Amino acid sequence: MADEVVLLDFWPSMFGMRVRIALAEKGIEYEYKEEDLRNKSPLLLEMNPIHKKIPVLIHNGKPVCESLIIVQYIDEVWNDRSPLLPTDPYQRAHARFWADYVDKKVYEVSRKIWTTKGEEKEAGKKEFFEIFKTLEGELGDKPYFGGETFGFVDLSLIPFYSWFHAIETFGEFNMEAECPKIVAWAKRCLQIETVAKTLPDQKKVYEFVGQMRKRFGLE
Amino acid sequence: MADEVVLLDFWPSMFGMRVRIALAEKGIEYEYKEEDLRNKSPLLLEMNPIHKKIPVLIHNGKPVCESLIIVQYIDEVWNDRSPLLPTDPYQRAHARFWADYVDKKVYEVSRKIWTTKGEEKEAGKKEFFEIFKTLEGELGDKPYFGGETFGFVDLSLIPFYSWFHAIETFGEFNMEAECPKIVAWAKRCLQIETVAKTLPDQKKVYEFVGQMRKRFGLE
Repeated sequence: MADEVVLLDFWPSMFGMRVRIALAEKGIEYEYKEEDLRNKSPLLLEMNPIHKKIPVLIHNGKPVCESLIIVQYIDEVWNDRSPLLPTDPYQRAHARFWADYVDKKVYEVSRKIWTTKGEEKEAGKKEFFEIFKTLEGELGDKPYFGGETFGFVDLSLIPFYSWFHAIETFGEFNMEAECPKIVAWAKRCLQIETVAKTLPDQKKVYEFVGQMRKRFGLE
Repeated sequence: MADEVVLLDFWPSMFGMRVRIALAEKGIEYEYKEEDLRNKSPLLLEMNPIHKKIPVLIHNGKPVCESLIIVQYIDEVWNDRSPLLPTDPYQRAHARFWADYVDKKVYEVSRKIWTTKGEEKEAGKKEFFEIFKTLEGELGDKPYFGGETFGFVDLSLIPFYSWFHAIETFGEFNMEAECPKIVAWAKRCLQIETVAKTLPDQKKVYEFVGQMRKRFGLE
């Protein structure tokens, strides 16, 4: 039986992009279903009744939820090609630690920058710079977080690049001036076809964020 | 070379207990180092400079942080005995999903019950019951979350049992009346020697929580 793979997703989602990159890295064909998050489909509610969130990967009818869990699932099922996690247990734990760090830190603080004003926004920016400086420290002089090749941590973080223009514009700072090593790393990742093909245009994300800000009464 | 395994931990930590159960399940000898969290050791700060939190597993000099990542690391390194995660990728993803659910939900809401008063505490209790009802739904009629045998989700959740007496006393409710299936499951887990040996006495945790409440000015 051929594998039937369906992805429930929403185009600007950093979490969805992780799964799209993983599927592209593995060369897996799948059906992409765009969700309207203000009017979630019965399929999404059935497949992820606990969190009711995208992305959901449906593999031969069975759902897998939470982006980093989906990426690990993809790596374990299609384990004959393009490994996403290292094979060494220590390196795997190290990669999981930093992907978890991205999960716990980057989304919330990015959101703070474009959803708040004044002091709260300034505090968000300070925290944002600290987080990305920490990530720059971990990257060090390596081309990728995974070392010589693009890996699990790179895949976890790179989707945020498509949001950088929105974040720096609404946050009133210059990402390249603040975190040059991260921007250089991101541009390196964009040389990879699966990443370049997956990430939406920064201007399109900026427009989307602008619409969200209007809806939140910030503009 | 024999493995040198050190655990930096704090006895009432649910996260530390997960690692202690995993090490016991695998029959690994290790040196236990108790941390004073109000005066963290230079070793802890050196081994976990990012989060500065216990537990940290130091294996042949190299640190692994974050409890669920440590448990997966232990399972991958000592893979010749007592598997903690299932081997099937779908079941692994399913176990990771529920362990992640426990991580995201249970600690915060438990803490809310014993650190707040009035409306906030009542809201915490309502949320606590909803979370444990969801967990009871996932458990269903199985003896363990892992099915017929104690597994990754059981190991992730069972440490909270040692806090139940404190939570239900300060929360003014009866856990067995509210969530009978979870209490029955916990008692089943306590039949397992590695769990029974690891979990501290509920009364001792209750006294510890009482001291914390005094320090927070709640008593």
